[in-house]
Amino acid sequence: MNKDPENTRTKIMNAAESIILDKGFGGTTVSNVIEEAGVSKGAFFHHFSSKAELGEELVQRYADQDAEHLEQTLVKAEGLSDDPLQQLLIFIKLFEQEIESLEEPFPGCLFASYLQQSELFDHKILEIIRESMLLWRTRVLDKLKKIEQKHHPRQDVNLQSLADMLMVIFEGSFVLSQSLNENKVIAQQLSNYHSYLQLLFDSSN
Amino acid sequence: MNKDPENTRTKIMNAAESIILDKGFGGTTVSNVIEEAGVSKGAFFHHFSSKAELGEELVQRYADQDAEHLEQTLVKAEGLSDDPLQQLLIFIKLFEQEIESLEEPFPGCLFASYLQQSELFDHKILEIIRESMLLWRTRVLDKLKKIEQKHHPRQDVNLQSLADMLMVIFEGSFVLSQSLNENKVIAQQLSNYHSYLQLLFDSSN
Repeated sequence: MNKDPENTRTKIMNAAESIILDKGFGGTTVSNVIEEAGVSKGAFFHHFSSKAELGEELVQRYADQDAEHLEQTLVKAEGLSDDPLQQLLIFIKLFEQEIESLEEPFPGCLFASYLQQSELFDHKILEIIRESMLLWRTRVLDKLKKIEQKHHPRQDVNLQSLADMLMVIFEGSFVLSQSLNENKVIAQQLSNYHSYLQLLFDSSN
Repeated sequence: MNKDPENTRTKIMNAAESIILDKGFGGTTVSNVIEEAGVSKGAFFHHFSSKAELGEELVQRYADQDAEHLEQTLVKAEGLSDDPLQQLLIFIKLFEQEIESLEEPFPGCLFASYLQQSELFDHKILEIIRESMLLWRTRVLDKLKKIEQKHHPRQDVNLQSLADMLMVIFEGSFVLSQSLNENKVIAQQLSNYHSYLQLLFDSSN
């Protein structure tokens, strides 16, 4: 008898996420997941009715963790300065430091992995991903609007696309970092974004 | 008898590329490709010994086209100004205009698609992708080094990571554009990169 069902469930999900980031959802089988997680086929189907259900729960968990990470980092940055520009610059620095402190290469983004095989997923799953990206847009855009009230941008800029640029830099850096096997790409690109925001809004530069 | 073998070959490759961009390489079967291309199984295996061989030839073709596109756009930009900063700014604008003029949504990047399933590919294929990304790095970095000799950057900047940022913006924009179903993301992000370079190097800003 399984005394720790939640642990088994988490083990299956972690194993599946890791395999999907290497092989894609389409290339991942239930057998792969069972083997990697070290659980029985019975245990797998006790927790998930199908690979499709696992796929949906994985992306929902990923989206929840992503949103929590975003909010926590934003709250932390807001606690370190009263100025919205400094808050956003600190927010980016916190991600930069976090990524620099990782010992393992960054494993990639489950959203991007799913989107590369979007034909395999239903509308509900693609909507979870879309909502996650819109959350980043909204949160960063709110901050940029406050920044614009205090700091006149040195160039005309579309604030929404400037907000999107953070997500773009994350996603693009994951691709380049993986291809070149250079882990530092992500932190370097965040640093470029930081520098761009300073040049745009920080009159002391 | 097939009177136009080159055309059949191209038809197969175009169909395969399009399906792989939707489903991933792992989720694409020879049957899918045959059906989409409207060719016989015999014709397929006359041209390709396996799906793996097709996968390799596809990425090689994509890399060749990508390199040619890069060089042609660079030559065009170099013909429009003598100043290296203006050349790079024009180079980015040319991509921006090209993407804005597309009637169909941008189909995505075959490199990113392959990298999301990197376990399915051998070293040779991953090396083709790596070399393509390094070519972009080298070409843009060469230009940035010439810019730096004439224009002192307004902030400390790592020129290599600034060169990489163009590829990062392309790849990240493809992800965001696909998820949000907003085609304009790519041109907007190229415009942000353009603005960042101006702020860094153009003293008239």
